Amino acid sequence: MTYQAPVNDIMFALKIAADLGPSIESGVYPALDIDTIEAVISEAGKFGGDVLAPLRWIGDRTGSKLADGAVTTAPGFRDAYRQFTDAGWNALPGPEAFGGQGLPEIVASAVCEIWNSSNMGFALCPLLTQGAIHALEVGGSDALKSIYLPNLVAGRWTGTMNLTEPHAGSDLSALRTKAVRDTGGNYRITGTKIFISYGEHDLAENIIHLVLARLSDAPPGTHGISLFLVPKFLVNDDGSLGARNDVVCAGIEHKLGIHASPTCVMKFGENDGAVGYLIGEENHGLATMFVMMNAARLAVGMQGVAVAESATQQAMQFAKDRTQGHGVSAATAHMSPIIEHADVRRMLLSMKSQTQAARMICFATARAHDAANTATDKASRRVALHRTALLTPIAKAYATDVGVDVASLGIQVHGGVGYVEETGAAQHLRDARILPIYEGTNGIQAIDLVTRKLPLDDGNVVNGYLVELAKIAAEVRASNRPDLGRTGDRLAEAIRDLQAATEWMVDAVRNNQPSALAGATPYLRLFSVTAGAAYLAKGAIQSETGASAVSLARFYAENILTQSHGLAEAITTGAESVLVEYEAEVFA
Amino acid sequence: MTYQAPVNDIMFALKIAADLGPSIESGVYPALDIDTIEAVISEAGKFGGDVLAPLRWIGDRTGSKLADGAVTTAPGFRDAYRQFTDAGWNALPGPEAFGGQGLPEIVASAVCEIWNSSNMGFALCPLLTQGAIHALEVGGSDALKSIYLPNLVAGRWTGTMNLTEPHAGSDLSALRTKAVRDTGGNYRITGTKIFISYGEHDLAENIIHLVLARLSDAPPGTHGISLFLVPKFLVNDDGSLGARNDVVCAGIEHKLGIHASPTCVMKFGENDGAVGYLIGEENHGLATMFVMMNAARLAVGMQGVAVAESATQQAMQFAKDRTQGHGVSAATAHMSPIIEHADVRRMLLSMKSQTQAARMICFATARAHDAANTATDKASRRVALHRTALLTPIAKAYATDVGVDVASLGIQVHGGVGYVEETGAAQHLRDARILPIYEGTNGIQAIDLVTRKLPLDDGNVVNGYLVELAKIAAEVRASNRPDLGRTGDRLAEAIRDLQAATEWMVDAVRNNQPSALAGATPYLRLFSVTAGAAYLAKGAIQSETGASAVSLARFYAENILTQSHGLAEAITTGAESVLVEYEAEVFA
Repeated sequence: MTYQAPVNDIMFALKIAADLGPSIESGVYPALDIDTIEAVISEAGKFGGDVLAPLRWIGDRTGSKLADGAVTTAPGFRDAYRQFTDAGWNALPGPEAFGGQGLPEIVASAVCEIWNSSNMGFALCPLLTQGAIHALEVGGSDALKSIYLPNLVAGRWTGTMNLTEPHAGSDLSALRTKAVRDTGGNYRITGTKIFISYGEHDLAENIIHLVLARLSDAPPGTHGISLFLVPKFLVNDDGSLGARNDVVCAGIEHKLGIHASPTCVMKFGENDGAVGYLIGEENHGLATMFVMMNAARLAVGMQGVAVAESATQQAMQFAKDRTQGHGVSAATAHMSPIIEHADVRRMLLSMKSQTQAARMICFATARAHDAANTATDKASRRVALHRTALLTPIAKAYATDVGVDVASLGIQVHGGVGYVEETGAAQHLRDARILPIYEGTNGIQAIDLVTRKLPLDDGNVVNGYLVELAKIAAEVRASNRPDLGRTGDRLAEAIRDLQAATEWMVDAVRNNQPSALAGATPYLRLFSVTAGAAYLAKGAIQSETGASAVSLARFYAENILTQSHGLAEAITTGAESVLVEYEAEVFA
Repeated sequence: MTYQAPVNDIMFALKIAADLGPSIESGVYPALDIDTIEAVISEAGKFGGDVLAPLRWIGDRTGSKLADGAVTTAPGFRDAYRQFTDAGWNALPGPEAFGGQGLPEIVASAVCEIWNSSNMGFALCPLLTQGAIHALEVGGSDALKSIYLPNLVAGRWTGTMNLTEPHAGSDLSALRTKAVRDTGGNYRITGTKIFISYGEHDLAENIIHLVLARLSDAPPGTHGISLFLVPKFLVNDDGSLGARNDVVCAGIEHKLGIHASPTCVMKFGENDGAVGYLIGEENHGLATMFVMMNAARLAVGMQGVAVAESATQQAMQFAKDRTQGHGVSAATAHMSPIIEHADVRRMLLSMKSQTQAARMICFATARAHDAANTATDKASRRVALHRTALLTPIAKAYATDVGVDVASLGIQVHGGVGYVEETGAAQHLRDARILPIYEGTNGIQAIDLVTRKLPLDDGNVVNGYLVELAKIAAEVRASNRPDLGRTGDRLAEAIRDLQAATEWMVDAVRNNQPSALAGATPYLRLFSVTAGAAYLAKGAIQSETGASAVSLARFYAENILTQSHGLAEAITTGAESVLVEYEAEVFA
């Protein structure tokens, strides 16, 4: 279970999908050059491969353990975390004003992939810290920022997101955790939160919980939710750690995967109420949380890419090492490496092409983030924010579905050995299976895409994107490259399917919302495979015959993108059959 | 984690896909009537729900344990197995001449589903015993039959299949286990077999291993493999158990799922050689094993149906109980059961329709088995054997893929709770994931379909089946039922896609085998979804508006069968992109 960071694939995906060269020239990345980016990614790859990947298996087998309210992480994790922060990796994407290196989202995303390929159970901890940093940057007072950000950026302290309650998962409007104003201008928090990743652990000195709660006089629903910072240890004025706050870990879940990551039940205010500090304004907590969630959704998409990459690497190696039967062109009496079998090659190409397509979609999203952050005028900032908004649900849902599907194929490539845990192929599937669920289920991503993102700027946001895709298709066709087979034609057809489905969907969102909701998931899939194919094809026409980019683009266009017509048909004609009454016999 | 046998769905699937009424009238089932079949299935459902399902979770958590060569099954399993055999369930499909009830394959398949829905880790044991019974029936001498069959049929002894060796998985020609003739006319077996389910356990008095091995003077490859019966305990002339044979369990695997089922490394002949008795003729063992494997492949297909059914039941119940957000037509301020959300309904319909489609394909296969067994003339027996041969790889591969996909969707319906092991949704996925691998990987099923089954009788076998499907499509269209939406048209289109792909494939198998192999997996999928849609639609036109059968047929046709065109395109135009050289950069 070694891991070799795919530096070339990552750099190529950045070049193609994040338009790296032109973006640097046009000032989106003022202080960066391509060599620096590649150097950072290579170094991260070494750290991931040398330090984190060797702990993936022990993290799975041992897991984090809870005893007397304290969580002990798996052997080696404390030391790895110390090395991680000492080397400055935690500070890489952090704001420079607070000790960070201020590297942009494209680089943060690339190294996020590497940490998660190496060891997803470990990488979830810094991922959540980044989320807390984002939220504090956006909504925190200067006082909170000056105390908390330097420690979070350095990784001396870690962050958590406390949203879910037993009765309030996808629907945050139902949450019941209470906040009461105390005499000192702060708040006291009481309630129970569940599914809190790294809610308690032994990696860092302090844990900073960001907690959604409701004031007693708050309006009902989502407009009455406030966001609070609740540290595990209170912080003295001199920055030293003070008393233990009234928050404890009451249990950790026994999960299918990511065993290394403690998923905690957190009890706030079992005694006097946990001291909390307001982030942003009262009753406007959800807006801040969503800023953080959008970044987190992209990061979860990168986790999908990451697991898919790891699973692909392992399956590829196995397919070269394992001999069995005779390949399609084998002439000898000896058994062939199974990679010579056509069906195994199909599986490997399916794994590798979907992984690269998902990676490219995520990097396109990261590039939009960065363009929004560095935009110098309001109009281009708005355009970039809209692009980010459009692509985020696609990046999150598609890349995480790919993570699960590719991990499952990885087991299949291994045959019976894949079902044996020690092989490590099964761990990828177990780890990946959380990804389509957390940070908003993929069904919710699809609904977000259809009901909130398609209507943006009266449809101009999505239409502008489709025009870009069509331009790529035209370039592919104009290239007239025989080594791309039907790639150009297939891409053009898929874009037409996507355009037709989009028109139908925009109309349905206005006039027949249930039908729009019924088709949301296949619509997101159609959007994803078309965008993924376009980025792969864009890469192919910039590559030489025989290059990996050419093989992947053509395979994807001719074998995966072929689903576009059927998806469009399901979206535009399938809704009535989905909306069968839930009292009907079929649900009895 | 309760389980309620879906007696109505099973009976309906038998009626439609196994033509139950006409089959009884025409003499395929001479001694049976519909009421008897339903009574047996209902009783099996009670046993499964009451006795086996409550042990599913403990079987997963505790698993089977190996100590000093002895395997202890999970608490409750011994008692459950005793009840299972005492009640005569093990004898249900067994030959009447040896104490069995001689019930046909359709009933055996239906109860096989029930055992595996209730507890797949348990059900694998009797499933393998049935395989051993089949092989002995086909190839065993009268002497072997009279000693072993009564005990195997009653379940006092259990059976195993010993095929795989570390270097010989899919490719049995490579196996090295040795057989040597001994002076008494029997054989001594030496070698190591892996992945032997229930190779050692504490459920029964004796374990009868069927072992593939090679005589020293055997021709190389698959034409030099013989099949031996190797009992754990030798049997005295009076039928009592004698000395321990030279076969031991040297280890059990630590697997992703089916923890209750001990997957053993078996060592034969570590001392004097294990005593083995030849089944059939020397060097012709594989033919006998394949008879057994064909039945076993259908049984594994039923396991796929079974896990899908369990996962669907659990998700359906959760979707009714769990409230969150507001459904598409919700008018109240209260949260809705999540089944009211369109996307959740899509998932549930996808689960339920694919489960029923897979069940129907399996029952059509079982019916072909039965028709072959009871055929009174050679010609109709040949037709039935060909139909069995054609449908077996489809039943195995499609139903097991459905098992995995539906179990994964079942987790998704549960959201975060689905990722917590105690919920039980994750166990379905872990258990199901072996199904596309064992008894011939699904890739091998696809290759079998394309290279061996399509050419049967010069293509008349597949063409005859396609004509039957086209007849169903014509009937659906002629029914003119508005409640079926586009079902008839979609089915007709899919059949055209399948016909075109079949023509292409038959030609490719003759003239361009690598291309045929490259498209085998999507071809099997296209075949499966078209057949599944046809059976569902056949059921729908025999049902009233509002019936579950109508909802499922329409949903499947309009949302799943829509992939037919893209699959046909991938099969007929995608091969070149699959057959990229394995030395190419993309595999570097």
